Amino acid sequence: MRRPTIHDIARRAGVAKSTVSFALNGQPGVSESTRRRILGVADELGWRPSSVARSLSSAQAGAVGLVLACETADPALMRLVAGFESVFGPREVGLLLQFAPRTELAVYHSWWHQRRVDGVLVVDVRVSDPRIALLGELGLPAVTLGRSALPSVSLDAETAMRTAVGHLARLGHRRIARIGRSPELVHTAEHTAAFLDAARAMAMESAVCVTAEPDAAEAVRRLLAARPRPTALVCDTDVMALGALGVAAQLGIRVPGELSVLAGEDSPLCLLPHPALTAVRVDLHSYGAAAAETLRCLLAGDRPQDRTFGPPCLVERGSTGPPVS
Amino acid sequence: MRRPTIHDIARRAGVAKSTVSFALNGQPGVSESTRRRILGVADELGWRPSSVARSLSSAQAGAVGLVLACETADPALMRLVAGFESVFGPREVGLLLQFAPRTELAVYHSWWHQRRVDGVLVVDVRVSDPRIALLGELGLPAVTLGRSALPSVSLDAETAMRTAVGHLARLGHRRIARIGRSPELVHTAEHTAAFLDAARAMAMESAVCVTAEPDAAEAVRRLLAARPRPTALVCDTDVMALGALGVAAQLGIRVPGELSVLAGEDSPLCLLPHPALTAVRVDLHSYGAAAAETLRCLLAGDRPQDRTFGPPCLVERGSTGPPVS
Repeated sequence: MRRPTIHDIARRAGVAKSTVSFALNGQPGVSESTRRRILGVADELGWRPSSVARSLSSAQAGAVGLVLACETADPALMRLVAGFESVFGPREVGLLLQFAPRTELAVYHSWWHQRRVDGVLVVDVRVSDPRIALLGELGLPAVTLGRSALPSVSLDAETAMRTAVGHLARLGHRRIARIGRSPELVHTAEHTAAFLDAARAMAMESAVCVTAEPDAAEAVRRLLAARPRPTALVCDTDVMALGALGVAAQLGIRVPGELSVLAGEDSPLCLLPHPALTAVRVDLHSYGAAAAETLRCLLAGDRPQDRTFGPPCLVERGSTGPPVS
Repeated sequence: MRRPTIHDIARRAGVAKSTVSFALNGQPGVSESTRRRILGVADELGWRPSSVARSLSSAQAGAVGLVLACETADPALMRLVAGFESVFGPREVGLLLQFAPRTELAVYHSWWHQRRVDGVLVVDVRVSDPRIALLGELGLPAVTLGRSALPSVSLDAETAMRTAVGHLARLGHRRIARIGRSPELVHTAEHTAAFLDAARAMAMESAVCVTAEPDAAEAVRRLLAARPRPTALVCDTDVMALGALGVAAQLGIRVPGELSVLAGEDSPLCLLPHPALTAVRVDLHSYGAAAAETLRCLLAGDRPQDRTFGPPCLVERGSTGPPVS
């Protein structure tokens, strides 16, 4: 049986879709009598507002969803997912996973109509993110990892970048660079701003930010071709930092003497190379768990506070040291 | 309402559970009259054999499940999952993911009773794997990645190891070693046997297999402490190969001159170090898709043939070369 939509209610009640949306979500802008009529029609059609408080145990779907925009092999994602699971798994709430590189919005629509999930977790929030508007419109409970108009859990970019840049400053570096993910991501925008702030505060001679897309190795090569060359490189991810070590080795640039490399996230991968990677440690498992916990509260009818997760700390290993000039 | 099990049918029909299982699965070893009686009881109890033909579109759950035994950050897994998704995503069949380090069997039980999934994909099949027996008993349609008593898709270990060892033999290596995952895994057992066969066929002086568990770096260090030292190392995974390069760098052993390193799977990680990693390429995305396709056939009522996926091919990069002695 097809699940009734706001569109069906609007047609039956003879009002605009937006009026139905306002009425069902208890927002102002619709008279009390219209609102009652709309709720009556919704009832009649068997429409059930998922945004209304309901505990997970009584939820119909018993699952939360995660749509991935890219077919990424990003190991960090698995740590987040394991964190989600640590909250939902023991409660027998399933995690529905879908890769949808070009059809994210369609997946949310379809999940909502089919009542496949009670809520969703949204990763890789973009600066102008159509998913946020859609989820708000659908009334599908959602928590974003990264600040948005929806309930969110975000990382402490200021402390992370102050920690990284401070470590490099204390070692004596004056020319630093940072390589980040797509500039469209809120994560990147926040970390870029925080990196530049920290560099200013520590009176760095130069501080450059570049994007790893589409080719991280090429971006590192360009950075290292600059004269004077930066003596330290902050990489957003563990994988980028591994790549930077590879490029340095290829160019015959010694690490850490001629180039310090710092990973913006810690993981088992950071331990593999020699020298091992100094990292700013963010516990992604706990971060994922915090996001899941926020969604759990939301589904239980609470109004969770936006939360900043952290603070991150520094794990010093062999890939950073004083610059040799 | 509790969902009737094979156990209930056996009790009501007064026969052994295995007899019920044979009867419901159309296997020999049970007379036609007993079989009819059992099917009658099953009907009476409302038991619905999920292994019986039903198309995905009419499936009740519209989802398939994947239980992960470990909270792994293994990037290879994400490529498999993306492959599953490439088959199920466009058909709006959800992928339910659960991390259950110690409670895998309980998850299958719970999914089955709650009819949460129409079938499951099983990764990391073990030599003596209690999941296989349970899934057979539950009648929950399942496809294993790796040979088992259930329908399966497996990798071509013989060709993979012949390719790897052949490459090293042609370069002039006579003493080789291999580092693998847990010996409990069918994957490991098959690749170990195939590695030793290939080494014998190519008249290697020595061929040693060790496990990366619990500490891959330590295992590599022990291998490299042997005298005479192996001149080439085949690593089961990309991550192990990265680790081997790190250990070699730490010990001052030059790659590839003093040690060739070969990864048993290819991935973007193999491109990061310098020298980049020579790899046996198995397309894990397509392997995942093949497994998903097999499950799709099973759910559609076909009896899919067990399938060997491959063959893998060699991607030669900088980490392998002639031994310098």
